[in-house]
Amino acid sequence: MTSDLIPDNQLVQPLLTDLYQITMAYAYWKAGKVNDHAVFDLFFRKNPFGGEFTIFAGLEQCIKFLASFRYTDSDINFLRNTLPQATDDEFFVFLKNLNAKDVTLYAIEEGSVVFPKVPLMRVEGPLILVQLVETTLLTLVNFASLMTTNATRFRMAAGDNISLLEFGLRRAQGPDGGLSASKYSYIGGFDGTSNVLAGKMFNIPVKGTHAHAFINSFSDFAELRTRIGNRVVLNAQDIFFGSQMLQRCDSSESEDLLLKSIEYRNIIAPDMNCMVDQASDGELTALISFAVAFPHNFVALIDTYDVSRSGLLNFCAVALALNDLGYRAMGIRIDSGDLAYLSKVSRHWFTHIATKFKIPWFANLTIVASNDINEEIIWSLNDQNHKINCFGIGTNLVTCAKQPALGCVYKLVELNGIPRIKLSQDVQKITMPGRKNVYRLYGSDGYALCDLLQRSNEPPPNVMTKVLCRHPFNQQKRAFATPSRVESLLKMYWQGGNVCMPFNEWSSLEAIREKVKSSLKTLRQDHKRYLNPTPYKVSVSDNLYSFINDLWLQNAPIGDLS
Amino acid sequence: MTSDLIPDNQLVQPLLTDLYQITMAYAYWKAGKVNDHAVFDLFFRKNPFGGEFTIFAGLEQCIKFLASFRYTDSDINFLRNTLPQATDDEFFVFLKNLNAKDVTLYAIEEGSVVFPKVPLMRVEGPLILVQLVETTLLTLVNFASLMTTNATRFRMAAGDNISLLEFGLRRAQGPDGGLSASKYSYIGGFDGTSNVLAGKMFNIPVKGTHAHAFINSFSDFAELRTRIGNRVVLNAQDIFFGSQMLQRCDSSESEDLLLKSIEYRNIIAPDMNCMVDQASDGELTALISFAVAFPHNFVALIDTYDVSRSGLLNFCAVALALNDLGYRAMGIRIDSGDLAYLSKVSRHWFTHIATKFKIPWFANLTIVASNDINEEIIWSLNDQNHKINCFGIGTNLVTCAKQPALGCVYKLVELNGIPRIKLSQDVQKITMPGRKNVYRLYGSDGYALCDLLQRSNEPPPNVMTKVLCRHPFNQQKRAFATPSRVESLLKMYWQGGNVCMPFNEWSSLEAIREKVKSSLKTLRQDHKRYLNPTPYKVSVSDNLYSFINDLWLQNAPIGDLS
Repeated sequence: MTSDLIPDNQLVQPLLTDLYQITMAYAYWKAGKVNDHAVFDLFFRKNPFGGEFTIFAGLEQCIKFLASFRYTDSDINFLRNTLPQATDDEFFVFLKNLNAKDVTLYAIEEGSVVFPKVPLMRVEGPLILVQLVETTLLTLVNFASLMTTNATRFRMAAGDNISLLEFGLRRAQGPDGGLSASKYSYIGGFDGTSNVLAGKMFNIPVKGTHAHAFINSFSDFAELRTRIGNRVVLNAQDIFFGSQMLQRCDSSESEDLLLKSIEYRNIIAPDMNCMVDQASDGELTALISFAVAFPHNFVALIDTYDVSRSGLLNFCAVALALNDLGYRAMGIRIDSGDLAYLSKVSRHWFTHIATKFKIPWFANLTIVASNDINEEIIWSLNDQNHKINCFGIGTNLVTCAKQPALGCVYKLVELNGIPRIKLSQDVQKITMPGRKNVYRLYGSDGYALCDLLQRSNEPPPNVMTKVLCRHPFNQQKRAFATPSRVESLLKMYWQGGNVCMPFNEWSSLEAIREKVKSSLKTLRQDHKRYLNPTPYKVSVSDNLYSFINDLWLQNAPIGDLS
Repeated sequence: MTSDLIPDNQLVQPLLTDLYQITMAYAYWKAGKVNDHAVFDLFFRKNPFGGEFTIFAGLEQCIKFLASFRYTDSDINFLRNTLPQATDDEFFVFLKNLNAKDVTLYAIEEGSVVFPKVPLMRVEGPLILVQLVETTLLTLVNFASLMTTNATRFRMAAGDNISLLEFGLRRAQGPDGGLSASKYSYIGGFDGTSNVLAGKMFNIPVKGTHAHAFINSFSDFAELRTRIGNRVVLNAQDIFFGSQMLQRCDSSESEDLLLKSIEYRNIIAPDMNCMVDQASDGELTALISFAVAFPHNFVALIDTYDVSRSGLLNFCAVALALNDLGYRAMGIRIDSGDLAYLSKVSRHWFTHIATKFKIPWFANLTIVASNDINEEIIWSLNDQNHKINCFGIGTNLVTCAKQPALGCVYKLVELNGIPRIKLSQDVQKITMPGRKNVYRLYGSDGYALCDLLQRSNEPPPNVMTKVLCRHPFNQQKRAFATPSRVESLLKMYWQGGNVCMPFNEWSSLEAIREKVKSSLKTLRQDHKRYLNPTPYKVSVSDNLYSFINDLWLQNAPIGDLS
């Protein structure tokens, strides 16, 4: 077994499961079903967020879970104390010797766009074993897929030219909820995260500037101090004033950044319809302190007091002063108020200053917006022609507030070669029995036409040949497709205790992120649009249709109306 | 420092934070603010779930985080590569030597009912350090408090006599989301969880029976097999029939549970308006197999085929057969359909059988209901006079679907002894400046009257003495209270690197769970009711009112209407 594959989170272990998996295992074991061979499908029934697509993610963690699947002695002890006293001791020996060597896992490539009813994973092996891994696989797939899908939706709303940053750790559902959010947001197309640990663990770009508390922690110029080696020097000439020397970018000379900033503030205030005495000196002091620490990377939060009357003016003053010393400021962050309006005001003055002082790059300063942004708000900001370059998104992204859970299920479809069907009064909940393959049929324009489920003993559909695609339960709904390309979606990822697909090729964050992009490109725009998207068709072959419906009729008792 | 206090999750570490905490730390350090002393309040602005109360949780984990706060060498390396190249190397030496010894943490007792604007924690210490712990503290408090509050709401909906089980792991937001959900559901009044790891880590009762897959994995009697030692014996006499011996509870004799079950099924079917040939033999086979594994703990999932026509009949047959052998079945689980109706049907037949066979306990068999249950559904089931004894609750509990995030914030209120106010155009977002204490005033009936915030240098309100309670921002809203009891809510939990309150007394799950119960009892029913609850009053002293409003006027520029 590949033993160097360890899940990100040490909590991912065989006991991270529902007790009923263990009680079922015992009942199966007791009933002599140790050699029963089962096939389970993992799938969902409805796309999240009112959309018509989902991105499949979590596979890499599932493989790592399988690779490390083993009950420790302390696990066994715990189970011994948890199951009834009469439980046969031999069962615990059986559990202790269990590993995932005999599981075979087929899956769709991580990062692929996927649809309801299609098996994302087909898990085969000894009934007891494949039952024991159910809950953990679902836990690993459900949130990862939901989160990735959510991120792609934010990306589509923002467009390709906007930078998207995940800022949600503090509102996430637990530490790992936050970490998974960072990881799967990046996979779904975000550009970075504020979460430092995510940066360390996953090599995701980490971003951040300062909070309102930073601005609030300065009151006036007299507080400006300088660190020289281990000494801290109070710069103040007297109690009313201060100074803040900063070395030029291009020489060893230093100049007074405070003096320069104040001068620029006086010059530009009338242009910007501001009064200098309404701008906060504490804010200017804070921005200068930040600029001294990060002269090459100066981004300023400008809404602590008042964007139009104070923050923007102070920022521009410091940015112009920095420019005199050879540094280019990076931009601003706005965390409250009317984001579209404030971004337009900011861009307007940036452009004005760029012209006035002949520094063209000033017009293109980055404007970051945050503050409870969701998908709808981005669409609305688009309508208002916002001038934002970057969104920092927290709560609505990381908790998937619009729909906080994906409903993947894990259903037995075959046992010892015999198909199993789970009936339900709700047709949506009827499972598609038997071992199945999934094909994606593409049209000549490169877009996906539909997904086709077949029994696993059927030959794959042929390119440029008409294939009948049927609705699984509705006899009337049928259509022919003539695919230009046929892709077999389920590939074997784990067998005999080994990873089958070259792990490093598909499992890196960058690879999965690319897969998300390329996979979404094959989906027609009308399936992806925000309002009233067209459902994508998931069909079954004629053979699978008859198979399902015969089995259904065999198994369903005819009720009496009452 | 207390070094044996380790957070539940190894991901809880100093790098589980936003990068801007580190960049701010550097800017503070660079500006010589190493010895600045800050006071931060951690609080929320709005109760979740449309309610008028919140339960504070997560404190124990926060203390463990502080106790273990240290940057490792690999953390420092990562930060060195993440911050700009020009970052002063001495800063990393400073970080490496940092620990939380100089932080003082005051908090409200974990498990207490709390309200908007009240500091749940007051964190004091060196500005840089208390800023560096912000995000992690928020992450640990936000979800824990949200989850616990959600659980208490489910408990109130269900009433005290219903057993509540958390079944949500598979839909949780990540592995730790699931684990936290189990833990804080238990704290909020749930009786157990399906999550085995939660049972192992937190000593929470673990519950579970079997899934539909278990029922589906049996087709007919001929499959019944028995394990004798390491041998598995196929019981079938011929290919059409089987048998299933089970040893009596009270002697070493065995009897055929299958034969007995079939006999009972034939006897009771007409009573129950069922036809034996419409009941599933596969289901009966599965139930018998489960009963043989768990004769003392027989709970059966009865909705795989049809509750009224198959599941209930099969369950009663096996339960009666078990009773003949000296075992008492425990009950049923229903996972679909009209739960109120099906519970009433089930209870009706249980009562009928109890009378007919003179086994009174049969009338009280446990009925467990699951299937996407939320708070509203429980209230609606109550209205329908359901006969359910136990709810298994998943998605809506563990993801807090009704509101998936609590918005705790962490605001600077004092720096070097000088109060700080964060103004905002939105009055709701204005912070209450200065170091404050919080008192809860109780009336003579034992119920809480209001929470009163005071400046920390004011003497506490006196019992049986009139105290003026003011709205923090609205001059007109004032009231007198004459408390029969005054409780100081903020207690010192961490100082000088040590836990101050006896850790084992307040931090156990059981202690916090009891606190939740006792604390909620002091809250008047109208604040807790589901529909239109009355807001609980959070007031400020006259002194604090003037202090806030003077500071506000000093800091707020007078704008121009435009």
